[in-house]
Amino acid sequence: MARPSEEGLIASYFAPLAGPGALGLADDAALLAPRPGRELVLTVDALVEGVHFLSGDPPHTLGAKALSVNLSDLAAKGSDPVGFLLALALPDSWTEAWLAAFADGLGAAAAAAGCPLLGGDTVRARGGLVLSVTALGDVPEGRMVRRTAAQPGDRVCVSGTIGDAVLGLDLLTGPEPAWSAALQPDGRDRLVRRYRQPEARLALAGALRDLASAAMDVSDGLVGDLAKMLRASRVSGEIDLALVPFSEPASCALTADPNLRDRLVCGGDDYEILFTLPAGRLPEMRRRAEAAGLAIREIGCVTQGMEPLRILDRGRPCRLTAASFQHF
Amino acid sequence: MARPSEEGLIASYFAPLAGPGALGLADDAALLAPRPGRELVLTVDALVEGVHFLSGDPPHTLGAKALSVNLSDLAAKGSDPVGFLLALALPDSWTEAWLAAFADGLGAAAAAAGCPLLGGDTVRARGGLVLSVTALGDVPEGRMVRRTAAQPGDRVCVSGTIGDAVLGLDLLTGPEPAWSAALQPDGRDRLVRRYRQPEARLALAGALRDLASAAMDVSDGLVGDLAKMLRASRVSGEIDLALVPFSEPASCALTADPNLRDRLVCGGDDYEILFTLPAGRLPEMRRRAEAAGLAIREIGCVTQGMEPLRILDRGRPCRLTAASFQHF
Repeated sequence: MARPSEEGLIASYFAPLAGPGALGLADDAALLAPRPGRELVLTVDALVEGVHFLSGDPPHTLGAKALSVNLSDLAAKGSDPVGFLLALALPDSWTEAWLAAFADGLGAAAAAAGCPLLGGDTVRARGGLVLSVTALGDVPEGRMVRRTAAQPGDRVCVSGTIGDAVLGLDLLTGPEPAWSAALQPDGRDRLVRRYRQPEARLALAGALRDLASAAMDVSDGLVGDLAKMLRASRVSGEIDLALVPFSEPASCALTADPNLRDRLVCGGDDYEILFTLPAGRLPEMRRRAEAAGLAIREIGCVTQGMEPLRILDRGRPCRLTAASFQHF
Repeated sequence: MARPSEEGLIASYFAPLAGPGALGLADDAALLAPRPGRELVLTVDALVEGVHFLSGDPPHTLGAKALSVNLSDLAAKGSDPVGFLLALALPDSWTEAWLAAFADGLGAAAAAAGCPLLGGDTVRARGGLVLSVTALGDVPEGRMVRRTAAQPGDRVCVSGTIGDAVLGLDLLTGPEPAWSAALQPDGRDRLVRRYRQPEARLALAGALRDLASAAMDVSDGLVGDLAKMLRASRVSGEIDLALVPFSEPASCALTADPNLRDRLVCGGDDYEILFTLPAGRLPEMRRRAEAAGLAIREIGCVTQGMEPLRILDRGRPCRLTAASFQHF
């Protein structure tokens, strides 16, 4: 079957996702009029088949995930989405059905976030699919939440639940894990969904901007990312693993196999928000998170100095066996 | 030999390229304060090993090319560079020496254009290297030069010379072409350089903004790109191939092999600027181009209607044998 040209493909699948600044994707560039009094927040994330997603992942969820992992960065910076650009390197085996489903998933995520497509480039890949999304957000001037500003005395908090995505990945790859027998009937689907369809915590952006001292999204594992944030802020800190929030299916798996704990707190792809704030702001943060339909949990604190992160379990020092997940 | 972590790699090779908004590349996102009264111009181009560049291309020129092909889009839109983001998918075979040379070439191109690195993502590739650059420029409000606004009666012009890059590519791949014997001693290097190190015509941006009715950069071949611009503007036009500017080495090759002509005007990777403007503005455009050290040449005109582009040779209709180059 004849395939459409690049122009045809853009018109069929991507133009419907385009915002006004995209000029119908018929120009070489997009045009963006920044809102007065706002600064732009820019982030880029690349996803490689076989590294960041599985060859068998459905195109619909992959389209949504490509955008969501970038929206997650925008949310962590306390910014509101403005738009995105997509570079898509397609392997020779692409089909129109695949592309239609991909664009559909991407479009649904973009519409839900109010983050239209501004521009893109579609090229042939050698090897597997490679996606690169550049997302733009904005914040009132001077209000971007940094990774580098955690203060001694601050509380360390995290949104949602941790470790679901890495369990979802375990279910999708390799031999069936023994703990899967302990899951409730819908547990498997919930874990797989967390891996394939992360939800950016955009509803927390405003509260983070107003209340957090520092924030980042958790993409390479909670413990490793917290260590990164503390290093970047030139402070130290501690985390109590007994306080880390787990979902109901992750708790079932952990009960069946207590050795999973380190994998949950070191695995990647959570796309939750890790943040610090002065203790006095915690009640308001809780209220605003609850109003947004999201849970937050205090899991540790920031301390003086630059010693390595102290890891506790019910108040006692403990040692992890798993290393931080590296996408690179 | 141990390789640096992603954090170490960023600190060594990319942080030196970073502008102030990049926050030392130590945060999850970059911050950009748009200049008052300006709009942003955004473009993304992906380069795939074996499609957009050769595996043997030197990393230094490749780094420069990755940025330059995007700067070329910014120039064509009449915009001034603001900064760029880089997504780099590196195959397992990467070495620190390769990366150092790549970053060096990229940094030199960025410094020359006043276009600092704002952010990036480095990931593992499966298969060859994939680069994706998102470049940001800005223009005074309402002044971006469109691809879609060519007017009947306008003159069609192009900067620099056409076809050098495709000849450079021919010299780097496949059997030695017979025409290469006709080149002057430095001719081969000049052609190869045009393929490996395109120069974005940023010096024309201001004049294009002031004088052009429509513009785009020539990346997929002059004839195909002109047809694209006319279609996007819902007009027709004609081009006389005898007027197309060729460099001295391209002219030597063409004299040795007259069949090359169609390849020159249909080949890709020129990264010159194709633009239209009212005839009355041509003298001023020439003056300003000359002041910027660049040549422009009138090669055709825009006509009413949407018939296919008419192709002439010394005023007589002619037919091309080569098709437009497609990067996709």
